[in-house]
Amino acid sequence: MYLATMQIEQFKEKGYLLIENLFDEREVELIRTEMLQVIAEDCPRRILEKNGSVRSFFAPDHSNEIFEKIVKLKRLVIPAAQLIGTDVYAHQTKINSKSAMTGDWWEWHQDYTYWKKDDGMPAADVLTAMIYLNDVNEFNGPMLLIPGSHKIGTVDEGENISGDGENGNNWFEEYKTSTFYMTALTADLKYTLKQEEIARWAKQRGIESAKGPAGSVLFFHGNVFHASSNNLSPWDRYSFLVTYNSVNNQLEAVEKPRPEFIASRNFDKIVPVHDHL
Amino acid sequence: MYLATMQIEQFKEKGYLLIENLFDEREVELIRTEMLQVIAEDCPRRILEKNGSVRSFFAPDHSNEIFEKIVKLKRLVIPAAQLIGTDVYAHQTKINSKSAMTGDWWEWHQDYTYWKKDDGMPAADVLTAMIYLNDVNEFNGPMLLIPGSHKIGTVDEGENISGDGENGNNWFEEYKTSTFYMTALTADLKYTLKQEEIARWAKQRGIESAKGPAGSVLFFHGNVFHASSNNLSPWDRYSFLVTYNSVNNQLEAVEKPRPEFIASRNFDKIVPVHDHL
Repeated sequence: MYLATMQIEQFKEKGYLLIENLFDEREVELIRTEMLQVIAEDCPRRILEKNGSVRSFFAPDHSNEIFEKIVKLKRLVIPAAQLIGTDVYAHQTKINSKSAMTGDWWEWHQDYTYWKKDDGMPAADVLTAMIYLNDVNEFNGPMLLIPGSHKIGTVDEGENISGDGENGNNWFEEYKTSTFYMTALTADLKYTLKQEEIARWAKQRGIESAKGPAGSVLFFHGNVFHASSNNLSPWDRYSFLVTYNSVNNQLEAVEKPRPEFIASRNFDKIVPVHDHL
Repeated sequence: MYLATMQIEQFKEKGYLLIENLFDEREVELIRTEMLQVIAEDCPRRILEKNGSVRSFFAPDHSNEIFEKIVKLKRLVIPAAQLIGTDVYAHQTKINSKSAMTGDWWEWHQDYTYWKKDDGMPAADVLTAMIYLNDVNEFNGPMLLIPGSHKIGTVDEGENISGDGENGNNWFEEYKTSTFYMTALTADLKYTLKQEEIARWAKQRGIESAKGPAGSVLFFHGNVFHASSNNLSPWDRYSFLVTYNSVNNQLEAVEKPRPEFIASRNFDKIVPVHDHL
């Protein structure tokens, strides 16, 4: 699938592009079924909410063929390459499970901040494709975005050092000293944007919520300001996210690299060969 | 102002009724200005969020003439009496300030549970009029309600005894032992509904969000299930709430009555004499 010029223009203007029904019902059902098996595994790739439910699961494609296949689908890789303007590789993949009644919120942040500071990514030539595995409505914590905020660049903000690791993850407790990167992954984000800064931009440019049916895909720029509320509804809001980075934007060496399952250092361009799940 | 039959029917059916623009711009501006003075007072009636911002301020009408006047306005008292079916008095009044960027969430709950268990209110012949002091949109934490849930009656649920008083309120720390009633007032609610129960009803009946312009008034039944998300937007969501109870539903004696500013024991019916602020 190739994007139309108008779609590319919209991405450049707003910093995101929602395409509905890029996956059909059968495919969504298949992915959801695989997902439940994947996230059942208690391992370092699994991050829990403070209340003990699963928040994220990194690199499901490392242990599951369906997820491995999704990352290389034409309908994702071709648009990603068009929007970035070069060939791409997958920098990070993860499942975010904002579960019914328990899914917690995400503070306003820019993804690229983490990839720059923690992973040594030189430029923001990077985007994420978020595949909706459930219908996303106003009640189950849709992603909120500030249109055009990716043009502001990376906002310089302080590190939030209050992260106290209260995420109910035993694995975290056990390896606390070595898992410095965990602070980027729980509800207490390591880098968050200054509230006054966000408030100023949101007042000026408004906020949009990316609602859409299961099977939709949201492509969003690494620098766009985004957040989401907790899920007070009885409807899960699962999603699978693939971050595509330009092959010309490979990670530089950093002092304490995060694990391969969070920041891949396999920079081979993806050659999308199939489009069937 | 008298409600039309259709409005009364809607309240009976759904458990709430939103009337837009019951207060005009000048009045809303006036109330907001008075409010900022009122909530600046550091006193036992003021409840803080965990992050230190004001969450609620009880009985602003005890210290401010404008709020005292609002409670007795014809446009509130007459509809309240129509919906309840008898004369009414004010059981509780408070400002809820879900501030921009910082306002915290409210778990699913039924108000009447508190009034029954903590205040000795015999029946659920009680409703709250919530006056919107800002535009309420999908981003600043609108009240979420499950239509028709008031018909289920009061759901029997356990006490949430995990309330740890982490609300940053010094006054709370000082008087911890005597302020048992505080647990009903912070983000860690004392009585919350079982998640499975809520999920079941919400799936069956759906969820509605009570969005509307500043000056709107939401009348909602004491037994209706409601909740609201945190406020991730740059727009405040202040409101003033007056709980009207039937004069035939006076509080019975309880072992440890909550303070007068939380549960009034002046049961005199309100005679609404004016409708001007």
